[in-house]
Amino acid sequence: MSRLSSSINGVTEFIGIAPIGDTIGMAIANVDPELLKNLHVEHPYRSIGILSARTGGGPQIMSMDEAVKGTNTEAISVQMPRDTKGGAGHGSLILVGGDDVSDVRQAVNIALENVPKHFGDVYNTPAGHLELQYTARASQVCNLAFGAPEGKAYGLIAGAPAGIGVVMADVAMKAANVDALSFASPAHGTSFSNEGILHISGESGAVRQAVLSAREVGIKLLTQLGGTPTNDYPSYI
Amino acid sequence: MSRLSSSINGVTEFIGIAPIGDTIGMAIANVDPELLKNLHVEHPYRSIGILSARTGGGPQIMSMDEAVKGTNTEAISVQMPRDTKGGAGHGSLILVGGDDVSDVRQAVNIALENVPKHFGDVYNTPAGHLELQYTARASQVCNLAFGAPEGKAYGLIAGAPAGIGVVMADVAMKAANVDALSFASPAHGTSFSNEGILHISGESGAVRQAVLSAREVGIKLLTQLGGTPTNDYPSYI
Amino acid sequence: MSRLSSSINGVTEFIGIAPIGDTIGMAIANVDPELLKNLHVEHPYRSIGILSARTGGGPQIMSMDEAVKGTNTEAISVQMPRDTKGGAGHGSLILVGGDDVSDVRQAVNIALENVPKHFGDVYNTPAGHLELQYTARASQVCNLAFGAPEGKAYGLIAGAPAGIGVVMADVAMKAANVDALSFASPAHGTSFSNEGILHISGESGAVRQAVLSAREVGIKLLTQLGGTPTNDYPSYI
Repeated sequence: MSRLSSSINGVTEFIGIAPIGDTIGMAIANVDPELLKNLHVEHPYRSIGILSARTGGGPQIMSMDEAVKGTNTEAISVQMPRDTKGGAGHGSLILVGGDDVSDVRQAVNIALENVPKHFGDVYNTPAGHLELQYTARASQVCNLAFGAPEGKAYGLIAGAPAGIGVVMADVAMKAANVDALSFASPAHGTSFSNEGILHISGESGAVRQAVLSAREVGIKLLTQLGGTPTNDYPSYI
Repeated sequence: MSRLSSSINGVTEFIGIAPIGDTIGMAIANVDPELLKNLHVEHPYRSIGILSARTGGGPQIMSMDEAVKGTNTEAISVQMPRDTKGGAGHGSLILVGGDDVSDVRQAVNIALENVPKHFGDVYNTPAGHLELQYTARASQVCNLAFGAPEGKAYGLIAGAPAGIGVVMADVAMKAANVDALSFASPAHGTSFSNEGILHISGESGAVRQAVLSAREVGIKLLTQLGGTPTNDYPSYI
Repeated sequence: MSRLSSSINGVTEFIGIAPIGDTIGMAIANVDPELLKNLHVEHPYRSIGILSARTGGGPQIMSMDEAVKGTNTEAISVQMPRDTKGGAGHGSLILVGGDDVSDVRQAVNIALENVPKHFGDVYNTPAGHLELQYTARASQVCNLAFGAPEGKAYGLIAGAPAGIGVVMADVAMKAANVDALSFASPAHGTSFSNEGILHISGESGAVRQAVLSAREVGIKLLTQLGGTPTNDYPSYI
């Protein structure tokens, strides 16, 4: 689905785009050392991969989480601008590092391919949105971004406007025996987005059940503000 | 005006919506204890009421200020996302606590009914907006949100783009003998919104006069950027 | 190009507008002392000039940088709201101080006249934007806003979504022998905007060459997300 190219008119850094979220993937083989000092990354690497989007934090983070698992790379920065082009949420900037540019290119390619799947449980209306994410085994990107314990199941439950996320979080916590990692809201742990976001961890069946229960109530609440919550890709959870 | 319902398809948390700002009201009878620990609220309460909106900070805060006065509830969190759906200002997330869910439901209901009135002095153009708020007797929500002394008159004077708010603030301070509580701007006291916001306190006649003088100059300035500043509900000040 | 007027219906503070960015210029002859204490300015001045915009940080800052050079004024506050009316970048609020209102009015007037020129290297598509700025001799406003050494050449290189700015920055650093002052990104040095922004200083020919090289690659990358990057005014660099 992503448009892949090893080079556009000599721009060797370009890798491809995903068909949603204005998501672009790029890689730099040898980062300029003085730039690297100013990039605010966790660890310096010779090669960095870049996944950048106007719309979507969770989808790109989950997509890169899978990509890092299968490649010789490490996420070194996850940043979430206040974006979504007038919507209530975040965009994303994810940097991964590797010792070889072929590794980071591979990671960015895999992430681009994964992005549509992880928009499967993003539901939009003119008034707001819901986002649900789930993985049976969180990896290093979810850990860096959200403090998810690696190797355990992880779930993300978000509602916008933020109050819907508060109720979804309460429903999720009561639906199954899961651990609350944190709850992010406009003034705490978001980039002033209008979202309530619960991060949970635990046994995979319980995390999935909590996410599904929250989705059900979130759809009903968001519908009250008008419009039908609609996903652009099939639900994957 | 708000659509009220004790339950939608079994979602007992839903209370109603206001007809402006994508404003939704909800309540949780018994908040999950682990969620409560992560909510960043001032005081823990068994029952919480939620007022959440895409557009409008001041209108919802003023509306909840009146609601808390007449009910056995207390505001425990006021958060202002950078929102307004592409506009220059804030949305809002307001949490109130009570020992009984009927109290917080009543507070949220009253707030929802008050919201349209408090949009009465919000004036929009394609280029920006003005917001004026006034109360003869500020209560606990204005205190928590803006440091307004309880029991005294309080006024809010906002202009967007922010520079218009600077001039409005100067006019307000010169128009009457009032106290400046604070001046918020993109880098100080807002969530990076494009507003200049003066918070004032004092004798009720003086506060009202300062607000009205600022409104007059604000309308003239905003008009210079094109369009006619228009309110969706009748002015109440 | 800007509409100038010494007064609109008695609003003596109004100076004029620029034809882009919802940019308005104003001045206060004698700022209210209590307001001044709350304005968070670097130095207190009797008279302040105000340049405020919904869209554009760099263009207004560069425009005021030239204006301050030629007048008896000083920038005392540069603030960058997260704005651009749903776009990926910033608006601006710039305050300049002077001992006489005629000085600050002159500075604001010059800045308003300069704004269109400095939008000459802002390129937009539906997916994002690029911004390039260059001056052979940075002055006090660039210093206050971005830490640019006064009297030396300065360049600004920005891409949105932010990842495009990372690649542009790398290309710029490799294209010429320049100093990286800082690199701003969603979580570091922006107001959560979706931009990657490199600030550079150095010898004028080198700074200009770095900016031009970054522009070339930025246009190719942004084009991959659809649309043709388009400037509203002629390129000036």
